[in-house]
Amino acid sequence: MAKMTPRTLSGFMELLPAPQQQMERIMEILRKTYSLYGFTPLDTPVIESSEVLLAKAGGETEKQIYRFQKGDSDLSLRFDLTVPLAKYVALHYNELSFPFRRYQIGKVYRGERAQRGRFREFYQADIDIIGDGKLDITNEAEIPSIIYQTFSTLGLKRFQIRVNNRKILNGFYAMLGLTEKSADVMRTVDKLDKIGPEKVKTILVEDFAVSESDADEILKFIAIKGSNAEVLTALEGYTGRNEMFDQGLSELNTVVKYLADFGVPAENFAVDLTIARGLDYYTGTVYETTLLDHPEIGSVCSGGRYDNLAEFYTDKQLPGVGISIGLTRLFYVLGEQGMLNPELPTAPADVLILPMTEDLSPAIALATQLRQAGIRTQLHCEQKKFKAKMSYADKLSIPYVIFLGEDEISVGVVACKDMKSGEQTKLNTQETIDRIKAGLAELEKGSVIVE
Amino acid sequence: MAKMTPRTLSGFMELLPAPQQQMERIMEILRKTYSLYGFTPLDTPVIESSEVLLAKAGGETEKQIYRFQKGDSDLSLRFDLTVPLAKYVALHYNELSFPFRRYQIGKVYRGERAQRGRFREFYQADIDIIGDGKLDITNEAEIPSIIYQTFSTLGLKRFQIRVNNRKILNGFYAMLGLTEKSADVMRTVDKLDKIGPEKVKTILVEDFAVSESDADEILKFIAIKGSNAEVLTALEGYTGRNEMFDQGLSELNTVVKYLADFGVPAENFAVDLTIARGLDYYTGTVYETTLLDHPEIGSVCSGGRYDNLAEFYTDKQLPGVGISIGLTRLFYVLGEQGMLNPELPTAPADVLILPMTEDLSPAIALATQLRQAGIRTQLHCEQKKFKAKMSYADKLSIPYVIFLGEDEISVGVVACKDMKSGEQTKLNTQETIDRIKAGLAELEKGSVIVE
Repeated sequence: MAKMTPRTLSGFMELLPAPQQQMERIMEILRKTYSLYGFTPLDTPVIESSEVLLAKAGGETEKQIYRFQKGDSDLSLRFDLTVPLAKYVALHYNELSFPFRRYQIGKVYRGERAQRGRFREFYQADIDIIGDGKLDITNEAEIPSIIYQTFSTLGLKRFQIRVNNRKILNGFYAMLGLTEKSADVMRTVDKLDKIGPEKVKTILVEDFAVSESDADEILKFIAIKGSNAEVLTALEGYTGRNEMFDQGLSELNTVVKYLADFGVPAENFAVDLTIARGLDYYTGTVYETTLLDHPEIGSVCSGGRYDNLAEFYTDKQLPGVGISIGLTRLFYVLGEQGMLNPELPTAPADVLILPMTEDLSPAIALATQLRQAGIRTQLHCEQKKFKAKMSYADKLSIPYVIFLGEDEISVGVVACKDMKSGEQTKLNTQETIDRIKAGLAELEKGSVIVE
Repeated sequence: MAKMTPRTLSGFMELLPAPQQQMERIMEILRKTYSLYGFTPLDTPVIESSEVLLAKAGGETEKQIYRFQKGDSDLSLRFDLTVPLAKYVALHYNELSFPFRRYQIGKVYRGERAQRGRFREFYQADIDIIGDGKLDITNEAEIPSIIYQTFSTLGLKRFQIRVNNRKILNGFYAMLGLTEKSADVMRTVDKLDKIGPEKVKTILVEDFAVSESDADEILKFIAIKGSNAEVLTALEGYTGRNEMFDQGLSELNTVVKYLADFGVPAENFAVDLTIARGLDYYTGTVYETTLLDHPEIGSVCSGGRYDNLAEFYTDKQLPGVGISIGLTRLFYVLGEQGMLNPELPTAPADVLILPMTEDLSPAIALATQLRQAGIRTQLHCEQKKFKAKMSYADKLSIPYVIFLGEDEISVGVVACKDMKSGEQTKLNTQETIDRIKAGLAELEKGSVIVE
């Protein structure tokens, strides 16, 4: 028979078993951490009606959409988890209680140009808190805590959550009479890290007709650096000139004030006036998270406050705040950087049992006992040589191998080899279980990510 | 602004938060149980190249495929998890160790006619064991154990795993010289429960030209009932006439022999000669699982042994055995039948903290402490009346509410109300944590499914 050459589409991550185990571990930590903060899991369809999904979209986004006809229906695959959330909240408004806190970890689809580290199918891990009409600033103050908890549970230490407030930026540009140009100005300022202050000034003056003195004011403003207290003090100097600015500064003060109570260490947090996060969606606090040793990766967790989640679907005012982790890309980058802890178990089983008797009953009964004790157990009953079976355990990094022969069965013990240390014990079943469990606890001690 | 009416496509399950929590709990149990048996998680793309995915498909399946163009690519959404597994194993053959045991819980897509309880996007939860060239019968004996463990951990008691062996059926039909008609005969016999033996006989004789005496033989054969021992003894009477039959019976004997060692109670297992599971894919043991009180649902977990997983992709002989749970449909049916335990917590949080002071620091610090203790905690800092906040906790079924006012803070206690009993305590933080944890353990005691 002619064979079809098997292949996986480019831009689609398909992991081998060992890295998949690491990915699962990360997802489990995300689910647990998000749950600790009172977020409920949601699972919306991957396919939506195009007219519903694309009610807001346009331009660059629309080009990337996987959109197709099925029968009479014009369908699209979701390209993020925010639009489906907006649809969900608008559709189920009467059945939800607000503030509505949900997390969703799911695949989204964007037909981007394929290149290394760019994915067309990728996981996003989102949390959002949606208010009905109003949403207290405390929610914005809580977000850095969730980011901190998530990344430190994963094992990261050298990361920084950078925070700004769009009201401060908008208020500042309003002071200069630059409100209409603020989108262009922010987009230019966003390039500061890449092109430097002089080039920024040139673009502001030449391309967007900002006056020399205003451009200097802008550069002076975004150059405000220092500890959080120093930045906040410097910002105090701008108060009393624009109401929006003052409100933004008050919000930023609140966010900073509660940091310690929320358990965020000062070194993992910075007020950073250069952060703007896109152009019109965000209206209050905005967040970016960078790995201090890998600034080239960019932000690994971003988001912010918005005033109107679902304006394309409902008249209800639904303000919210949310963040998103681009999980597939993050996982890829961590792998590239050698930051995934190779010491953590990635085997499909904790124990491989090699029955050495014709009658398999004792080996099967032992497997059943181990599983009842919560130990992931595989029986290896294939007709293969002993050496091949040991090599199988070795290749899969299965930490323990149990040999069960007539000798062991007759005296009621189990021969168990620790594959790492090479140490072999002959203990009864319960003692063997205890030893394996202690060993596994030791193996599981490390964090998923190492720096 | 004109609004787009939000809607979710028909045939796509989108759950409200409370049932979604129940679904998550089921998925967690599946992941844990499959892992206990040494299966490793996989996650293959939802989209595949059409020529790869449809290498085997045809007829009815092909019509249901979500297939579309994107740029120059002819793409399709996966319609099951078996074809992607075949592709995966053929593609990554050199990087895998065999037997290869994987589980995958993922969404698949079939554009079926929309009707109540039928889904176009639905989860399948599959396990498969793939051998390289050979695969021992012990794997087939282990499958009922996994089914039993899965469903009993979910809380089901009144279910039965029905097992047959295709070699027994094929061998039996070969004895009668009906090999060429065996597909038609099995398809007819499959209707036995619905149309009764007389109608089956009429179809066999009139539509498929089976002789009267052969038809009687067939009916007599599939009427073999009784305990496993009785059925196996009756089958002994047919041995010595066909090699394939004898091999099938020997396999079935092995499967039954190891049941008790694998921890499967006799009442949850039955040899059932009427089970055939489709036509040409399966070659050995086949499985169906029925809920004894809901036979109308049909099989909730099915599968079997096959000899050639990936023949469309590779020359390698890759025999395997696997089972699949149609999770979305099962969840829907359990809900319809009122079998989802309403007593289990479905709230987004275990505790809702209502700060009663202007300064939120003590409340936030308390939330941080509770979260560190593993308690899912939500702060409610919105500008709302006390009554509205209590009603929020009530609507979401949050089990504990904590009030933190000046009085409590000054004496170092926490006022905590058990929302179910109404009992309110004033204890210090650690004592409150202990009380909540004990209460939660009690709440979590039940199983997901109740009969």
